[in-house]
Amino acid sequence: MSSTRLSSTAPTLFLDVKAGGRYAYRRFGSGSGLPLLLLQHFTGTLDNWDPALTDALAGGRELILFDNAGVGRSAGAVPTTVAGMAEHVVTFLDGVGVNRCDVLGFSLGGMIAQQMVLDSPTIFRRVILVGTAPRGGEDIMHLDKPRLATHLQDPSNKGYSVLQKIFFTLTPSGQAAGASFVERLAERKEDLDGKAGPEVANAQMASFREWERVTGERFAELRTVQHPTLVVNGVHDEMIPIANSYRLVENLPNAVLLAYPDAGHGSLFQYHEAFARQAAAFLSSNSDSAVY
Amino acid sequence: MSSTRLSSTAPTLFLDVKAGGRYAYRRFGSGSGLPLLLLQHFTGTLDNWDPALTDALAGGRELILFDNAGVGRSAGAVPTTVAGMAEHVVTFLDGVGVNRCDVLGFSLGGMIAQQMVLDSPTIFRRVILVGTAPRGGEDIMHLDKPRLATHLQDPSNKGYSVLQKIFFTLTPSGQAAGASFVERLAERKEDLDGKAGPEVANAQMASFREWERVTGERFAELRTVQHPTLVVNGVHDEMIPIANSYRLVENLPNAVLLAYPDAGHGSLFQYHEAFARQAAAFLSSNSDSAVY
Repeated sequence: MSSTRLSSTAPTLFLDVKAGGRYAYRRFGSGSGLPLLLLQHFTGTLDNWDPALTDALAGGRELILFDNAGVGRSAGAVPTTVAGMAEHVVTFLDGVGVNRCDVLGFSLGGMIAQQMVLDSPTIFRRVILVGTAPRGGEDIMHLDKPRLATHLQDPSNKGYSVLQKIFFTLTPSGQAAGASFVERLAERKEDLDGKAGPEVANAQMASFREWERVTGERFAELRTVQHPTLVVNGVHDEMIPIANSYRLVENLPNAVLLAYPDAGHGSLFQYHEAFARQAAAFLSSNSDSAVY
Repeated sequence: MSSTRLSSTAPTLFLDVKAGGRYAYRRFGSGSGLPLLLLQHFTGTLDNWDPALTDALAGGRELILFDNAGVGRSAGAVPTTVAGMAEHVVTFLDGVGVNRCDVLGFSLGGMIAQQMVLDSPTIFRRVILVGTAPRGGEDIMHLDKPRLATHLQDPSNKGYSVLQKIFFTLTPSGQAAGASFVERLAERKEDLDGKAGPEVANAQMASFREWERVTGERFAELRTVQHPTLVVNGVHDEMIPIANSYRLVENLPNAVLLAYPDAGHGSLFQYHEAFARQAAAFLSSNSDSAVY
């Protein structure tokens, strides 16, 4: 597959902005849908998007994959708040002339998506939030938990193989899906972002701690969001437990929840075919309702 | 629509069994799918299935609508346990020669479906559970709660109009959907089951109280079920809160959760087009996984 996937060969592009920033991104795909902006997980770069998923999504719309400030080959300091990251995304979208799009935010990316929808509601039409949490959510990315720390501290988990352990359930089917995911990530051979270092991890971890804080009435800001939203979670997500997705759909007035069995944080990669089908059906709808 | 809907004109059939029982049912629809058995809610009869939903589902498979013992025009005493109701369904299926089918259980019907899948696993291929609860679930059908009692005790809510108040959210969109649902139920003019009386309500209410009891380790029996299952719930279900659907997918090893916004107990009727599409996609899958 490697030589034929659009996702694995799409060149990395760079946007220089007046303020002095430089953002790395990739754009590929086509179709009648609005562009879909993809916002990545903790320490993830452009190279961490599963090409099987992005290829499937790119069949119906242009995708825009984005490295936030200080991540991958984007310049600048990594913000220590989700709000700071959201500002960079809005600056980037303005710079590339995108004033209306859909957004898929995974994990940290889903928090950024929520912040942007609150701050810049007119830019976004439909929102997909995968494996993420509302502000004031529970048990967000505590990597010192035994279930996660065991794998993160195991030196035999080299490179992406740690993702197989922490993004997927430990069942045979979960681990097989994880191994396939890691193989697919390796399909891209050139023009790579490289691995994020500790300065990225530390700043992003600070943003999780800030995001856990409640200001005012818990979840009240979610009740103001009218955007049709699809919330997706693996039932056994150890990194950002599914209770956070429950709170999202209980408080967002216009959100559908789709939860997958035998799946952890990487549910969208584990079930990339089904997820791409459901996401495309959701994004293809022009209804005011999230129900598709 | 009324004169053209299959669901509103399908004749009621009767099965007499050796043990002396008589069951009312309707069969209609066709397609390549396995027959789909539909099990109804508290005090509901054959006439309480939304014809818009059953017509849509009947496009791909034969449907079997069933009145349990003592309900509608089925003879006998209404069992006071879910297990007793499940026995009647299995007796009925044997009597009509159905030894393999899919099942959609709504509310009380979803409890019966769970019991049958545990007792007679080989009969059932795929399972859809809507607005229901596991054994040992929380806050199951406590009709004395203010939000429900207000409407149930209001004499101005005549006939099915009470369903508009208790199956749907009180938002304008929820109530509009509820009014349309009640109109659709009225499309069937002849060969009606009639309204269930207090003897049905009392026995079925006893079955809810028994179902709330935990025997042994809570939810342990769910972990033995391998059937692909689709769990569906309105986010704001006041009759059987969505927390019960959370517990179902957290414990059933092979279940997808789909939750709808701005919807209560009657989410499958409120979003009948989307629900029928999702249910058909789920039922059309031949995968071992519930993910569709």
